[in-house]
Amino acid sequence: MVPSKEAVVSSYNRVKPHVHQTPVLTSSLLDEMAQAKLYFKCENFQKMGAFKMRGAINAIQQLSEIQKKNGVVTHSSGNFAQALSLAAKNLGVKAYIVMPSNAPQVKKDAVKQYGGIITESQPTLAAREEEANRIQTEKGATFIHPSNDLNVILGQGTAAFELLKKHTDLDYILTPVGGGGLLAGTALASHYLSNHCKTIGSEPFEVDDAWRSLQSGTIETNKTTHTIADGLRTNLGDQNFPIIKKLVSDIIRVDELEIKQAMQLIWERMKIVVEPSSAVPLAAVLKRKAFFNSKKVGIIISGGNVDLKNLPF
Amino acid sequence: MVPSKEAVVSSYNRVKPHVHQTPVLTSSLLDEMAQAKLYFKCENFQKMGAFKMRGAINAIQQLSEIQKKNGVVTHSSGNFAQALSLAAKNLGVKAYIVMPSNAPQVKKDAVKQYGGIITESQPTLAAREEEANRIQTEKGATFIHPSNDLNVILGQGTAAFELLKKHTDLDYILTPVGGGGLLAGTALASHYLSNHCKTIGSEPFEVDDAWRSLQSGTIETNKTTHTIADGLRTNLGDQNFPIIKKLVSDIIRVDELEIKQAMQLIWERMKIVVEPSSAVPLAAVLKRKAFFNSKKVGIIISGGNVDLKNLPF
Repeated sequence: MVPSKEAVVSSYNRVKPHVHQTPVLTSSLLDEMAQAKLYFKCENFQKMGAFKMRGAINAIQQLSEIQKKNGVVTHSSGNFAQALSLAAKNLGVKAYIVMPSNAPQVKKDAVKQYGGIITESQPTLAAREEEANRIQTEKGATFIHPSNDLNVILGQGTAAFELLKKHTDLDYILTPVGGGGLLAGTALASHYLSNHCKTIGSEPFEVDDAWRSLQSGTIETNKTTHTIADGLRTNLGDQNFPIIKKLVSDIIRVDELEIKQAMQLIWERMKIVVEPSSAVPLAAVLKRKAFFNSKKVGIIISGGNVDLKNLPF
Repeated sequence: MVPSKEAVVSSYNRVKPHVHQTPVLTSSLLDEMAQAKLYFKCENFQKMGAFKMRGAINAIQQLSEIQKKNGVVTHSSGNFAQALSLAAKNLGVKAYIVMPSNAPQVKKDAVKQYGGIITESQPTLAAREEEANRIQTEKGATFIHPSNDLNVILGQGTAAFELLKKHTDLDYILTPVGGGGLLAGTALASHYLSNHCKTIGSEPFEVDDAWRSLQSGTIETNKTTHTIADGLRTNLGDQNFPIIKKLVSDIIRVDELEIKQAMQLIWERMKIVVEPSSAVPLAAVLKRKAFFNSKKVGIIISGGNVDLKNLPF
């Protein structure tokens, strides 16, 4: 169930030529606040503005030539729609993207800009899945799930792989958790690359399905999704949950005010544009100062795709 | 009148241990838009969030031990107030900062945070100068001008020095121009470090005193200062103007809409927080596409200190 070290290393080598080796930034002011050494892996500087590019690149490359010829399909209104579109374009593959008819025009435009072929559906999960199924049947396209796909998971882990290659002595590595792809991939990289670095997830109280899933041992869902961290509203899946259960040491929950404050700190102190989901790990570190005291902590900044006209400050 | 190569090199060596070697970022999307290769030297990541730290560090270090003991004084409500405060603190020197009584509380707080000793004055230039004079007399403090001081100018040039060391084949290097310290310092670095790199200033039409000064051959002033680029409202001085006249090949003017659009491009495409003044060089490159076509262009991103509650988007 848990991919091998070889799978982790070969995914890194496969993804590397197609993505930016994003910089790792530090901030003495934030270190002082946290009383820890923080290393921010800036996937907001990644192609299309988020780590999701990595998983899409890895998954598409693992397809057979015939599969590549027939294209890929997903349903998403978020970063994965853009990631799959751009990754497919860069690899010479068609990408069919099912988007709900009420998705913001700016998101549809971004997918189009990256060459994705949009099909609109009614804005229910059932309608989106039906439309994606239809495209699989009609076009022979391969469905790629945004987070519950082993090759996507392995691809997302390459950000942590790069971080751990550069900073070999991290004590902890934190990611936000939504669908679970980034957290599972990061845990795999950390497990195989470090002797002692522990992987910790972080999520809003408002959508604490991952925390509850670890408690109960089965995949839990969210009844409501009232969080500013719009990338984290989804649930874990049967591919990533076993990895998370085995390799993630803890999940820390934070409230909405803590997320907004951490986001503002990152913008004001580090001078980088990050989406609310990216601020969740810093909020977690600041919430658990005693725990992280004097430790070396890696943080995956997941992305920077925000609407500048609609900021929470 | 024009400092020597030795002065440029020794300033670089003097400033280096006290500042961040800021990263140089690139963006394939912006390169495509500009049809040129752009290299952004990110002084928004500098200590206190702007290049002004460099000039303050250089100037304070050039003082005698007695001068250092008596402290430094300036009048400023902008980045230089913070820069002198932090530079002085880091070098174990007192900094007296004269600020107009109507300066925003957030700016006063920033100066205090960096250890500056604030004296409030009436909000006229005469009152500010009088107060600064009084402190010089009473405390024996040395006055340091934000832009019209050779050691400050040489310090500001160290950003371009770092950029040109890393990218030796730049065709042009662009900075915004306000008081003229950054532009003059950059021109000096470029003059001594490169065989062919030309230095170009950029400023808003609304405060085009530097452009008019180059036309007339004497220092011109602005009657009004209605520009979003609040760092660029000041005039050139007798220390930096001769350098600019001799070593700057052109000044490009841009309008307010062009500045806002360039600022939004930098935020959205590069995912970094920059102040409006920092967007002026990119606006200039995009305005003169034919001129910069296929060239290698360095851009000094001057700073990232903005009020997130008051953005132009």
